[in-house]
Amino acid sequence: MLFERSVNPGVAAFEGGFLMPENHSVHFADRVHAAIRRTQTPVMVGIDPRPEELPPGFLDQFPTDRAGTAEALRAFGDEVVDLAAPLVPAVKFQLAFYEAYGPEGVAALHATAAHAHGKGLIVVLDGKRNDIGSTAEAYARAYLGKVPVGGRFEPAWNADALTVNPYFGGDGIAPFVKVAAREHKGVFVLLRTSNSTAGEFQDLMAGDQPVYRHVADRLAGWAAPHEGACGDSLVGAVIGATCPAQLAELRSLLPRVLFLVPGYGSQGATASDVGHAFRADGTGALVNSSRAITYAYERPASRAKFGDDWRAAVLQAIRDMIEDLARHTSAGKLRS
Amino acid sequence: MLFERSVNPGVAAFEGGFLMPENHSVHFADRVHAAIRRTQTPVMVGIDPRPEELPPGFLDQFPTDRAGTAEALRAFGDEVVDLAAPLVPAVKFQLAFYEAYGPEGVAALHATAAHAHGKGLIVVLDGKRNDIGSTAEAYARAYLGKVPVGGRFEPAWNADALTVNPYFGGDGIAPFVKVAAREHKGVFVLLRTSNSTAGEFQDLMAGDQPVYRHVADRLAGWAAPHEGACGDSLVGAVIGATCPAQLAELRSLLPRVLFLVPGYGSQGATASDVGHAFRADGTGALVNSSRAITYAYERPASRAKFGDDWRAAVLQAIRDMIEDLARHTSAGKLRS
Repeated sequence: MLFERSVNPGVAAFEGGFLMPENHSVHFADRVHAAIRRTQTPVMVGIDPRPEELPPGFLDQFPTDRAGTAEALRAFGDEVVDLAAPLVPAVKFQLAFYEAYGPEGVAALHATAAHAHGKGLIVVLDGKRNDIGSTAEAYARAYLGKVPVGGRFEPAWNADALTVNPYFGGDGIAPFVKVAAREHKGVFVLLRTSNSTAGEFQDLMAGDQPVYRHVADRLAGWAAPHEGACGDSLVGAVIGATCPAQLAELRSLLPRVLFLVPGYGSQGATASDVGHAFRADGTGALVNSSRAITYAYERPASRAKFGDDWRAAVLQAIRDMIEDLARHTSAGKLRS
Repeated sequence: MLFERSVNPGVAAFEGGFLMPENHSVHFADRVHAAIRRTQTPVMVGIDPRPEELPPGFLDQFPTDRAGTAEALRAFGDEVVDLAAPLVPAVKFQLAFYEAYGPEGVAALHATAAHAHGKGLIVVLDGKRNDIGSTAEAYARAYLGKVPVGGRFEPAWNADALTVNPYFGGDGIAPFVKVAAREHKGVFVLLRTSNSTAGEFQDLMAGDQPVYRHVADRLAGWAAPHEGACGDSLVGAVIGATCPAQLAELRSLLPRVLFLVPGYGSQGATASDVGHAFRADGTGALVNSSRAITYAYERPASRAKFGDDWRAAVLQAIRDMIEDLARHTSAGKLRS
């Protein structure tokens, strides 16, 4: 069940001066840049599968027990991956929705993540993990590195990147950075989240700046020693699209840090909100949309146009987002 | 694979005025109190299994692939549970060490957690989870509640409690509290962690108090509406034993909040450090020790006394900790 890095020869070729994502001797940020340049878009498709939102009839193909439900999540995720792979650089899996179905759900995640790798996508696991140093190291080895198996070391998850929570301070982050640096993987640290109560602790003023700015200052230090040829670090930041002022402020504070930006679409942020995440050349960010893409079929306009063809609705939603960002942000420069 | 609440008649009986942990119509804090009074100790055994630290020869019984390694983790965890169950009220599983072995590792966790339930132990999953509200709700339903399966709702994990991270503010906590209240489960919110860099963000002074005190103030509000008959809330707090001053301060600030206290033993905290976590009657806290118990066989003194009998070393380490806390903290009052 280990990830197989099945290389698609058409994708693995050297293209535009960048090596493709499959090449694991290439720095994480360089792989992200290559994928963004190849697809000419910063769109990241988020896969957060909930049985109750699967397209009509989808669940009926599977047994009505927990293993069957997990298998439905796998099948749906695999199909979304197939639709997204030709169009975007990266996918992000929300671990909560898989863990909700126990070990069987986690096996579904593992299978779909491997499938996404096989399609040449950058795979980000959105687990918001962290703990004290020794446990943080266990998470880092689990998701980004290798673990001991019968006298050798093997990858268990082989994700390209993991989201992590900064509440533990530096010694909760260092093991992720160390493992990521060794394995050519990435780490996205939560800075300013997209939810409505994000400010309760993140915006508390400590000295002359809010807590999230203190985290940003430390993040700059974690990131600086780990820049790739493209100039960006393997240490990235999660910053919600629902806080455009902070996005702009942090873009200027952290010029060589890749931003993972959730909140576009169903959380209400627009292209002009996320525009602040990019540098002038359109690089510097991956912008995620999950439910607005995967459950696009639920929208009346989509239903009117595509009827029960949920796959067509997903494709259209991805293309609409790509177009929206290209027209209204500097990401349009990726096409020139 | 759902947890079976196999009731041990000897444990499930009404005893000392409290219902036993198996009774799911009883408030979480009341179940914890009952378990602490029954066992007369606040000791919580932490299970953080790493293949490289299993007793000599243990791994040799299992296939040398990832599934075999995961099976070794399950077998070891089950044995520790068997040793701990007659002596302590609760066990805590560190999810990182199971996730390190992929879906197979997660299945091992699921099996051992079910085994611990069957033995009448309070089962705390230490996953430090959190996310924005809708995803936090998915985690809450996953670990503490029920998820939709074929038109009905079933528990996937059925843990008694989960540890959660407060960085998202109130709307990342509310779904856990809501589900826990409905299902008679508990939530332990990180307040002040036990690692050396905990203070980097948690101790930043914001206004007239550090960040962790702001979290504590909010926690008091989350906890107050959810007190059981014993007076404690289903919303608890994680506070490291390595910061005794903060433990004392927070004990006085949060008189009706149950503390989960890691850091005793291998992280260096002593009984006098953790003593501040208890109320005068010895209640109010669960004190966790993981590696110092499960890998007690590694200590030279243990080896000299027990040789290769790692089970005897584990039992002795549990008994030593129980005795240490009884002698040097108010937890000794639990015996009177």
